[in-house]
Amino acid sequence: MTLRAGLLGVGMMGRHHARVLREIDGIDLVAIADPGGDPHGVAGDLEILPDIDALIAAGIDIAVVAVPTQYHEDAALKLAAAGVHTLVEKPIAHSIDAGQRMVDAFTSAGLVGAVGHIERFNPAVQELRRRIEAGDLGAVYQVVTRRQGPFPARIADVGVGKDLASHDVDLTAWVVQSDYETVFAQTAFKSGREHEDMITITGRTASGVIVNNIVNWLSPMKERLTVVTGEKGAFVADTSTGDLTFYANGTFPLEWESVSSFRGVSEGDVTRYAFAKREPLRVEHEAFRDAVLGHETDVVTMAQGLRTLAVVEAALDSARSNAVVVL
Amino acid sequence: MTLRAGLLGVGMMGRHHARVLREIDGIDLVAIADPGGDPHGVAGDLEILPDIDALIAAGIDIAVVAVPTQYHEDAALKLAAAGVHTLVEKPIAHSIDAGQRMVDAFTSAGLVGAVGHIERFNPAVQELRRRIEAGDLGAVYQVVTRRQGPFPARIADVGVGKDLASHDVDLTAWVVQSDYETVFAQTAFKSGREHEDMITITGRTASGVIVNNIVNWLSPMKERLTVVTGEKGAFVADTSTGDLTFYANGTFPLEWESVSSFRGVSEGDVTRYAFAKREPLRVEHEAFRDAVLGHETDVVTMAQGLRTLAVVEAALDSARSNAVVVL
Amino acid sequence: MTLRAGLLGVGMMGRHHARVLREIDGIDLVAIADPGGDPHGVAGDLEILPDIDALIAAGIDIAVVAVPTQYHEDAALKLAAAGVHTLVEKPIAHSIDAGQRMVDAFTSAGLVGAVGHIERFNPAVQELRRRIEAGDLGAVYQVVTRRQGPFPARIADVGVGKDLASHDVDLTAWVVQSDYETVFAQTAFKSGREHEDMITITGRTASGVIVNNIVNWLSPMKERLTVVTGEKGAFVADTSTGDLTFYANGTFPLEWESVSSFRGVSEGDVTRYAFAKREPLRVEHEAFRDAVLGHETDVVTMAQGLRTLAVVEAALDSARSNAVVVL
Amino acid sequence: MTLRAGLLGVGMMGRHHARVLREIDGIDLVAIADPGGDPHGVAGDLEILPDIDALIAAGIDIAVVAVPTQYHEDAALKLAAAGVHTLVEKPIAHSIDAGQRMVDAFTSAGLVGAVGHIERFNPAVQELRRRIEAGDLGAVYQVVTRRQGPFPARIADVGVGKDLASHDVDLTAWVVQSDYETVFAQTAFKSGREHEDMITITGRTASGVIVNNIVNWLSPMKERLTVVTGEKGAFVADTSTGDLTFYANGTFPLEWESVSSFRGVSEGDVTRYAFAKREPLRVEHEAFRDAVLGHETDVVTMAQGLRTLAVVEAALDSARSNAVVVL
Repeated sequence: MTLRAGLLGVGMMGRHHARVLREIDGIDLVAIADPGGDPHGVAGDLEILPDIDALIAAGIDIAVVAVPTQYHEDAALKLAAAGVHTLVEKPIAHSIDAGQRMVDAFTSAGLVGAVGHIERFNPAVQELRRRIEAGDLGAVYQVVTRRQGPFPARIADVGVGKDLASHDVDLTAWVVQSDYETVFAQTAFKSGREHEDMITITGRTASGVIVNNIVNWLSPMKERLTVVTGEKGAFVADTSTGDLTFYANGTFPLEWESVSSFRGVSEGDVTRYAFAKREPLRVEHEAFRDAVLGHETDVVTMAQGLRTLAVVEAALDSARSNAVVVL
Repeated sequence: MTLRAGLLGVGMMGRHHARVLREIDGIDLVAIADPGGDPHGVAGDLEILPDIDALIAAGIDIAVVAVPTQYHEDAALKLAAAGVHTLVEKPIAHSIDAGQRMVDAFTSAGLVGAVGHIERFNPAVQELRRRIEAGDLGAVYQVVTRRQGPFPARIADVGVGKDLASHDVDLTAWVVQSDYETVFAQTAFKSGREHEDMITITGRTASGVIVNNIVNWLSPMKERLTVVTGEKGAFVADTSTGDLTFYANGTFPLEWESVSSFRGVSEGDVTRYAFAKREPLRVEHEAFRDAVLGHETDVVTMAQGLRTLAVVEAALDSARSNAVVVL
Repeated sequence: MTLRAGLLGVGMMGRHHARVLREIDGIDLVAIADPGGDPHGVAGDLEILPDIDALIAAGIDIAVVAVPTQYHEDAALKLAAAGVHTLVEKPIAHSIDAGQRMVDAFTSAGLVGAVGHIERFNPAVQELRRRIEAGDLGAVYQVVTRRQGPFPARIADVGVGKDLASHDVDLTAWVVQSDYETVFAQTAFKSGREHEDMITITGRTASGVIVNNIVNWLSPMKERLTVVTGEKGAFVADTSTGDLTFYANGTFPLEWESVSSFRGVSEGDVTRYAFAKREPLRVEHEAFRDAVLGHETDVVTMAQGLRTLAVVEAALDSARSNAVVVL
Repeated sequence: MTLRAGLLGVGMMGRHHARVLREIDGIDLVAIADPGGDPHGVAGDLEILPDIDALIAAGIDIAVVAVPTQYHEDAALKLAAAGVHTLVEKPIAHSIDAGQRMVDAFTSAGLVGAVGHIERFNPAVQELRRRIEAGDLGAVYQVVTRRQGPFPARIADVGVGKDLASHDVDLTAWVVQSDYETVFAQTAFKSGREHEDMITITGRTASGVIVNNIVNWLSPMKERLTVVTGEKGAFVADTSTGDLTFYANGTFPLEWESVSSFRGVSEGDVTRYAFAKREPLRVEHEAFRDAVLGHETDVVTMAQGLRTLAVVEAALDSARSNAVVVL
């Protein structure tokens, strides 16, 4: 069976969705809609339809929604009503309430509703999850993420919390398989916009793992790092290169003084693993496709996407009120 | 004038104090006391005196106190009473109250009371401070420190908060010239000791700088990093190598796609500066000596050492109560 | 005036030429020929012509030749005879004699004949050349290149000397503006092919610069580095990231012993420069276009491409005879 | 049995020999001689004797010779005549003939004669040798060393070839267990001294391994690297940090294009091994002690030290004559 796919939005992200929808097996991209036309020229033989209603009218099984966040709810509710499995770009919605309505609509319709937190599908994070599941780290103590870089040119209708920190919240909770429970954040507004451009969070998951997310658009150097420290050592996942490195706990004390001054009192093996590095967007689409086909996958569900949005909102509230928020 | 110096304690740190007290100009090491004898064989021609009273009786102008934290107060108060300028190892004392009594004693005696937060004297941090003072960064937005590594063999009578995070609090507040005002922390106890071995703090200084300190004895890799992000870029100080690197904000947009994917949307110059790298302990001692001689220096005063202890205590309270502490 | 361009060969490299010929100003890609058809689907509206004669018959001002090396001569001589300015992929030809005939044909026809040694157009190498020209390094003492990595999947009809080391020879000679004069090389054949898969060269340019090229398809780690050491320090150009870093000679002696053990006796500033990073193939095409338009450019001339081939042949001869070759 | 040790020379290296001779088991440092006195104050309770004759007269079993190279022969021959096992600093002697006389003297006397090529005893090189012996790399294809850095303050009576490249020749031949057979070198003289300050060698061992040594005192950045490429991957040994890293050949093709552009077409695991890192000088002394005691060790024999000197002389000849030298 080949799924007939529709794509709403062919802007910066949408053009990549178009390419991947055309590349992977089991999917036919049959319709594209974008009220703004086709700025990147991805239509090919397809007509650019004017809106979500025309997209649905084209007769589709699945849809990808890649329009600005404020339009997610409207499109998603119409797609749910039409019986179309849907993947919306992250964040799930412009508000918790809107996100909740989307979750409810897809749940009651028995449809797959998914959110595009693509970093979860980065090969480094996928391999990290597999190795933690396999017990390579033992008990997990702490997850620290750093997602920093210069201000992107693309106009964003949200702050860096929803745009970037939502990646960290999603992947952290997924990697340790436990939701954020306590958050405290500080934010800064330095670029003259109404939304924050820097957020730093310290908190804890329900399972007791300490979490720390350092996220901003104010750093000259780009970083996409997740450091997970546990009983047997530490993993460092770099999603910009797709690398996963394991620092094993020290087995050899360092007696040579000129080395121990910068290396520490002991050393263990350090291994950067080789593994298949597939394009994250492709893996995300395959997970969505397989979920639609009834297979078990680690697709980001709308319920998870909503929880992630709630955590980010809680962090922003925390920064405003200078108080801890317990979710 | 040559200052007659006495040293209390010749353990792991004390032996280094003995060496430096003998190396620098203007100081004569005339007396050493340690109830535990001389395990590292640093006495040379000097007799090892039994206690602080014998040290004071040797007739000294200045003293260095390098015994376990719980004995700081007793030694310091006797030295103040005897009119001896004193440098105590960090943390200043085992309790806020004890630290306050020390501050009061040295203040009322008109003596220099100093605390050995040696990381402030690391060449990377000294150069960082100089360059921020010179305006190289413009407004400071955030200070993030990472001080991680394996559990040290030396027995510590305190947790990692007082032992290591106190360095971060001292140097952060000094570098931005503003005290911590708000702190929230999470801690972990994984080594079977009564004290924490992991602490992660998010907070803010009185001047509005976001602070974040990631400190533990549970990491296989040693890190000693301070990242200061501001208006014109970011400084990274590595105190294990004494390096200071500046990442200037991007001036060139990156149009070559295979590079921009991991480098970000723009780049600025990245410069690791060359500068004189002097041994931190030596610089600390010279600052103490010069303060005693009446010159203006950036010695860590006992008042600053007490504030640092208060911040760390507040962070530990915050972790226990799961609530923000405003100092 | 817009130049009418023809492209011969749309394999791995040819498809990139097609894209760039369509992107840059002042050129119209009007004809494509490939006896093997269009495996990557780059033709668009154009018919895929069967051969070079058909390409010439399409009426073109300039041509890009991206077919296997053994076919370069035939295509180039026909293009020269037809008055078409031509860029052939590197190496220029399968033999010195063939290359000489190509040089002669384009010279006597008064046409631009160029060779696609693309690494010269890497932003790191371009910036390196600019800074050396500006005197930033003072006298140049040595150029060391490392071009290593795993065996590529694409079938190559030449050894690693002509395929990769020819990049190093071209860029080294261009950067120091002096030809190789003395070469000695060692080679290894480890993959069961008739051509070498490892070559290591030590030699000297006419101007007296020591050259060293370490090139192979037998290394698990990919490296694309050029290190130029001179009077004032050293430049390191990384063409895989497009980075250029300058290590200035030491100005500060290192007195802190725990640092000097790994950093050396002195340090100078280390600067990774920011500069415009344009796609090398695009810069190569613009240089070719501008040369055709009569402007002065640093296009790789066929005479230079021939000299580079002669240097590589000399190195291979040297390895076979275990003797130095003076060109 | 405890060996009575004598030390000739307590300059820069001699002081470290004094410390280590006092630290290790089975050796008593009973006599020190230095015509220049005791500039670093290492004598302790010992009298500083005036010359080699006085040192021998003190009644010693073993001796360490750490005086300038030109005095090695005289001291060594007297020690051999007196039946004293001897370790001389590298290079073995100021000339091949002198070295040959030393080898002959110790051989005919049935004494251990050793040379202090300390880099062989660096933990990274020791571990590298162990792993190659164990077959971790399979067949060895190439050894490339880089030994670069700024000009050292200490006055040297030899060029960088004998002073530094001799380390590379010794460790390369030892690691692959085969002597250099073919060498070609280029040298530069940039510091106004009669000896070279830059040497770059390409050659081959008797067993067919390609060798390449890049050595100079003209680089701002300090490097101490040995890269061994073979059948199963590549080892990188860094003797400034004592690290050994293995890059395994690629097992996973890289299909994600934004990563493969800088990482190459495939990847294997990369592992920085943990192992005991002991001070090289101590390991060297223990190997010498054990050889004296009749145990099999990898001490650098005078015959090996002489071969290394011959290789370096051949390389210098090669540079002067611009011709290959076959040893």
